[in-house]
Amino acid sequence: MAITTWQEKAQKARNLRDASLSKVDPPLGPLPDPLPLSSQGLPKLLLTPREYELTQNYDAIALLKMLREKTLTSEELTRAFLRRAALAQAAVNCVTELMWNEAIERAKYLDSCPEPVGPLHGLPISVKEHHGMTGKTNHASYVAWIGEDSGLNPLNDSLYNAGCVYYVRTTGPQTLMHLECNNNIYGRTVNPWNRNLTCGGSSGGEGALVGMRGSVWYLQGLGGDIGGSVRAPASNCGVYGFKPTAKRIPLKGMKAAMAGKDSVLATFGPLTVSRDTIHLFMKTLLDEEPWRLDPSLTVKPWTPEKITTPLKIAIEWSDGVVKPHPPVIRAMQEVAAACKAAGMEVVDWEPLDHAKAWDIVSGLYFPDGGEAALAPIIESGEPILPLTKFITEEQPNVKKRDMHQYWGLCVERDGYREAYARHWSKTAETGKEVDVIICPTTPGAAPLHETARYWPYTSQWNLLDYPTVVFPVTFVDQEKDLKDESYVPTNEQDKYNHELYSPEAYAGAPVSLSVVGRRYMDEKVMAALEAIEHAMGRE
Amino acid sequence: MAITTWQEKAQKARNLRDASLSKVDPPLGPLPDPLPLSSQGLPKLLLTPREYELTQNYDAIALLKMLREKTLTSEELTRAFLRRAALAQAAVNCVTELMWNEAIERAKYLDSCPEPVGPLHGLPISVKEHHGMTGKTNHASYVAWIGEDSGLNPLNDSLYNAGCVYYVRTTGPQTLMHLECNNNIYGRTVNPWNRNLTCGGSSGGEGALVGMRGSVWYLQGLGGDIGGSVRAPASNCGVYGFKPTAKRIPLKGMKAAMAGKDSVLATFGPLTVSRDTIHLFMKTLLDEEPWRLDPSLTVKPWTPEKITTPLKIAIEWSDGVVKPHPPVIRAMQEVAAACKAAGMEVVDWEPLDHAKAWDIVSGLYFPDGGEAALAPIIESGEPILPLTKFITEEQPNVKKRDMHQYWGLCVERDGYREAYARHWSKTAETGKEVDVIICPTTPGAAPLHETARYWPYTSQWNLLDYPTVVFPVTFVDQEKDLKDESYVPTNEQDKYNHELYSPEAYAGAPVSLSVVGRRYMDEKVMAALEAIEHAMGRE
Repeated sequence: MAITTWQEKAQKARNLRDASLSKVDPPLGPLPDPLPLSSQGLPKLLLTPREYELTQNYDAIALLKMLREKTLTSEELTRAFLRRAALAQAAVNCVTELMWNEAIERAKYLDSCPEPVGPLHGLPISVKEHHGMTGKTNHASYVAWIGEDSGLNPLNDSLYNAGCVYYVRTTGPQTLMHLECNNNIYGRTVNPWNRNLTCGGSSGGEGALVGMRGSVWYLQGLGGDIGGSVRAPASNCGVYGFKPTAKRIPLKGMKAAMAGKDSVLATFGPLTVSRDTIHLFMKTLLDEEPWRLDPSLTVKPWTPEKITTPLKIAIEWSDGVVKPHPPVIRAMQEVAAACKAAGMEVVDWEPLDHAKAWDIVSGLYFPDGGEAALAPIIESGEPILPLTKFITEEQPNVKKRDMHQYWGLCVERDGYREAYARHWSKTAETGKEVDVIICPTTPGAAPLHETARYWPYTSQWNLLDYPTVVFPVTFVDQEKDLKDESYVPTNEQDKYNHELYSPEAYAGAPVSLSVVGRRYMDEKVMAALEAIEHAMGRE
Repeated sequence: MAITTWQEKAQKARNLRDASLSKVDPPLGPLPDPLPLSSQGLPKLLLTPREYELTQNYDAIALLKMLREKTLTSEELTRAFLRRAALAQAAVNCVTELMWNEAIERAKYLDSCPEPVGPLHGLPISVKEHHGMTGKTNHASYVAWIGEDSGLNPLNDSLYNAGCVYYVRTTGPQTLMHLECNNNIYGRTVNPWNRNLTCGGSSGGEGALVGMRGSVWYLQGLGGDIGGSVRAPASNCGVYGFKPTAKRIPLKGMKAAMAGKDSVLATFGPLTVSRDTIHLFMKTLLDEEPWRLDPSLTVKPWTPEKITTPLKIAIEWSDGVVKPHPPVIRAMQEVAAACKAAGMEVVDWEPLDHAKAWDIVSGLYFPDGGEAALAPIIESGEPILPLTKFITEEQPNVKKRDMHQYWGLCVERDGYREAYARHWSKTAETGKEVDVIICPTTPGAAPLHETARYWPYTSQWNLLDYPTVVFPVTFVDQEKDLKDESYVPTNEQDKYNHELYSPEAYAGAPVSLSVVGRRYMDEKVMAALEAIEHAMGRE
């Protein structure tokens, strides 16, 4: 019997991907060589004008209207997104499988229906590989798992029942626990705005694809967002991303090395090109009453709110450990000024021991010291990547715990959560309670490859399970965002982050911020974002 | 330095109790010797007519009305309940501390307020010792912990802020994981209807006290209901008991050997003398928005429902493992007949592998094989009681697990929960979906001492986290509830339970049933109980 090496196994997965891409019809024309720093100009160059229009100018809401009114067929739209996704793959390496035949067949079927089958009738949707898909394999970026079957996935099923067309599956990083997107199967996915930067992770393929407008809405896959996996890619790629409170939408279906661990909860969440598409995603899912199938979910329909009195907003200028880069600070200044001008109250947010929060949450990510997450790597013999080592081996509080030590850490977690709740409630002592926090999504714009080594700006809100929405604000500006050469870092992590920055290195990168609300205030966070964007002069 | 034996330490706790009871003024007259089988006739014998009237004839709602209208002072009411609690102690041994001076002082203060301080203004409330109380010690029935301080308790604080008077603390069993009430500090608490039977546990002192009407409403303490700790005592003592979905009301404050374990969640819940008092309890607590202090809670106010179309009720005649005793079957027959006569649809409930559910939930109770629960016992040297051995050592699936085995069990749990959700949803295939299940609370009426060795009728709904309310139906009837001598048990547990029964042994015992709804359907379960009791000709 021939022994299969990990390299041979990985080649099989790439062959499957390449075979799926070979079906693109007509094939893409030749790409520029070398590829440009930013991939944003490529679609206009390589797609037909009609394909470009359909994939560039509309969000999911607008497309669904056209589909409903039959001014557009699902087949035409799906073919356009299939070709744009193929182009995204050529440009930034974000695809694990293009579903050419299946997607077109599904689209044709939907076009043949006399009535829409549901609220997503005819809309092409991308899904992270890690999330699994009925009838397809699911390796979650582990070489060892290549060829394994996908499990059941109620979230996929809900969206399918609502009429969507699945057309592409996308990449994730090794262990799914990087804020970047690199693995030994497909290599590195890069940022569509600047290929020297990361698209983020774990939903890196999705981030890059939506950032390339190869998808109007893509789903964050396995592991969901447990440390920033929706938000970092959304932020890095300049799109919207929403991490709801855990247990509002089903998580089942993703392939997990640590299934059953429930001390910090992951959640799925959408990455989209518009704010309204987030509402559509949440409403579509919750209208199906997923709690009837997944009894771990909270029973609460999606009930959009409107802000009727001026918001009180707190700005988290820094988490007290690592100072954000100049473009992030400028983004906060601009948004704060717009909110003030619109009559909102704007105050400073006092972070409450975020360093401790990282100790707790990193410990809870790997209560077995990382054994389960590393086991499939060891099994296949694929190399352990540096960012895998970083998160499983180099964090002081990641260690193998016995049951009682583990419970002790859960008690610490609960104490911290309660302290943070009191901290937030205390803001009411000087007038109105803070409605939402505006904060950096990450300590800078999209990081250079292999440098996304500071999670706490995102993981903070996983530990607390606070709903958070990411929205694009601006781009790195070579003139406005100069490096503060006089700044003296206050600790090693701060120094590392400070030294990474120069406006040149981050050229063209989107800059995003997060809006954070108290636990279960998902609809309020979305309403606050609307008010904030109105204040910014947006729709 | 003198070494304190466990016996000396236990004596200290009893001395504290006895000193607190010595303040009763005027002292109780002499009790009958020997004490009668049922304690129900004692209050009339030993209390003044006014005390008897106040403590016997009204529920919390009626008393609060009188307090609000100032036709009754809190001091008079509190003195009456204090004396009745002292009597309950003499009769059934349910008190760990009578708060004579503090309660009267608090009552006087409330009487002096020009306006009610809150919805519970002036109402005396009892609390399980295990639950802790600010400024008091808290041993949770472990000798080792005698003299330790209570922690913070937001639930207590909420009720206090709502105007209640705390006046008595009550007993629980060793480890709090018995469905009886016996420990090495105070000995055994017995059933107020028949002293040969258990009052149940873990909230045994509370059950006995409310069953003696020494309290109109008492709170289930530590551990809350994780296996039947509210429901077994309520059922055994003939009062109402409600186990809400976990995370609707705060649990913090109880003293726990296994704090931080969150694989099966406990919840507090009220034991009361009327159905409406449960609503009052839930509304009072949730009106305080406890999720602002305890961010682990679900954000949902108490929103009572009304049943407007006839219910579809499923009767669980047996769990498929242990056949309930004749009085329980008769109770179900009577309630089913009343519901049918009232126009409801009544069908049979098909239990879905409840034996497996017990394997899972018992394993999750003690993923460390019981080490943490036994540690304080070993520390003090107090004897391990037989029912402690039963639950920690004699259950096949209670074992010490490593982290990965533990996560594996959590995956089994989630799979079982999902299967049960599908099972319930499937009832809609033949018409309307089942609204609620009516089932035995326990496999018989209050068990003889040391025989409460079958948990699954209650623990089933902890594993599934389904809200459940216990209501009294009837009493064991010497003529109607004959033993079925022809019955051939189907397994060892069934045989054990069958052999326990004779109508004589259970003379005078209340018989109760449970109404169970799907997860988060707390308000619906309460509305269904109202409809069911109306069908039974009750108010």
